[in-house]
Amino acid sequence: MRNIKLLIEYDGTHYHGWQRQLNAISIQEEIEKAIYKLTKEKVNLTASGRTDVGVHALGQVANFYTESTIPAERVSYALNSLLPDDIIIVESKEVEQDFHARYSAQGKKYRYLIYNRIQPSAFLRNRACHVRGRVELEAMRHASQLLVGTHNFKAFCAAGAVVKSFEREIYDINICKEEGGYMISIDVFGSGFLYNMVRIISGTLIEIGLGKRKETDIIEAIETGERGKAGKTAPAHALYLMEVLYSKQPL
Amino acid sequence: MRNIKLLIEYDGTHYHGWQRQLNAISIQEEIEKAIYKLTKEKVNLTASGRTDVGVHALGQVANFYTESTIPAERVSYALNSLLPDDIIIVESKEVEQDFHARYSAQGKKYRYLIYNRIQPSAFLRNRACHVRGRVELEAMRHASQLLVGTHNFKAFCAAGAVVKSFEREIYDINICKEEGGYMISIDVFGSGFLYNMVRIISGTLIEIGLGKRKETDIIEAIETGERGKAGKTAPAHALYLMEVLYSKQPL
Repeated sequence: MRNIKLLIEYDGTHYHGWQRQLNAISIQEEIEKAIYKLTKEKVNLTASGRTDVGVHALGQVANFYTESTIPAERVSYALNSLLPDDIIIVESKEVEQDFHARYSAQGKKYRYLIYNRIQPSAFLRNRACHVRGRVELEAMRHASQLLVGTHNFKAFCAAGAVVKSFEREIYDINICKEEGGYMISIDVFGSGFLYNMVRIISGTLIEIGLGKRKETDIIEAIETGERGKAGKTAPAHALYLMEVLYSKQPL
Repeated sequence: MRNIKLLIEYDGTHYHGWQRQLNAISIQEEIEKAIYKLTKEKVNLTASGRTDVGVHALGQVANFYTESTIPAERVSYALNSLLPDDIIIVESKEVEQDFHARYSAQGKKYRYLIYNRIQPSAFLRNRACHVRGRVELEAMRHASQLLVGTHNFKAFCAAGAVVKSFEREIYDINICKEEGGYMISIDVFGSGFLYNMVRIISGTLIEIGLGKRKETDIIEAIETGERGKAGKTAPAHALYLMEVLYSKQPL
């Protein structure tokens, strides 16, 4: 059995998230179906993590085991010819037997996109979060640095999530504005993320940028772990899984 | 009667082009319907020019006359609340009585987008032209300069177009590649364009970038006016009307 690693890009708009489920089309199911057409094998495709309904990916990683003899590098071409055009296998290669897309991951990079213009964009309705009011970048940047490091992120996790620990490490947060344009990106790079964590961080930073929330709220949210101290969960359709890192030197 | 000028952005994917027609939904019709809901007036919306099926706009300009007393600047907000979310009125303002979106135009800027990666993009399937092979930017840039100036562009016009003259002036062509990315843009800035002219120019330059056509073909195409001397018409879904200029100093 060979272990094949896929680098996957998808527009999440028309899917009910990554994970296979009943009565709804998922990205995992579409790719598993394409692998079945190619190899006649019912594989279980393991991703670095689930993505929610509407969330996109430029660098999702998944792996599966196969008896097929198709050259690993050709798998991407073959699958792309079988997949819908909003799911693209950017790269396929054979990896070591013990590579596991989820457990081997050392870090992840997410991007949250904000379209900051009075009128929304005709092109980005499913791709970026429209924020009408003027956003203060420096306030967002300054506040974002309070989140960097190892903290208890319970206040930045969707209520009801069952996890062993709320402790996570954020390696870095970078906030950029497109030159001469309206797009603001929040890049969050960390060891791993709780459920809705990047969306809650983004929602909190947007509120700070709009002057609706104080920087000290972040300190209180981390200290108390109270979900109410953090901002709203920003919409899913503006979130992108950019990269999954498997090296031990993530920075 | 006030004369209202609209600055319009649209994702052309789901429309049969700008112009109102029977049995197909057009951008003009959608906006005229929204104006009717707002003012109860059946107006005739005049654009700077038609755009084809699938073509997008970031800076289409149109004007209409109205008896309505709604403040001109508020018209954009009111129309956006009535329009589908792939058509956005970016700005509305009152202009002089003799302003005519088409006849007053002094120049237009178009952009053609190429996605130059082996695998296509999951996000740009309706937004950019996928070119798999390696494109030589310098060859495209050098060849593009042969088109700048006043020439007979008959070879760069769709067959059967009825026009008084095939002479047009191209002020400038700029070809850029996204840093660290796969997107190439061809910006074409001219006095006015023949039917399919920017798409044929883009198709010709892509063939030159791929080494499938020689630079001298452009010289022959201009000299002979033969459509066959120019390249294929590049797909519509990668073309954007960026800006319409109304000043007399377009450069």
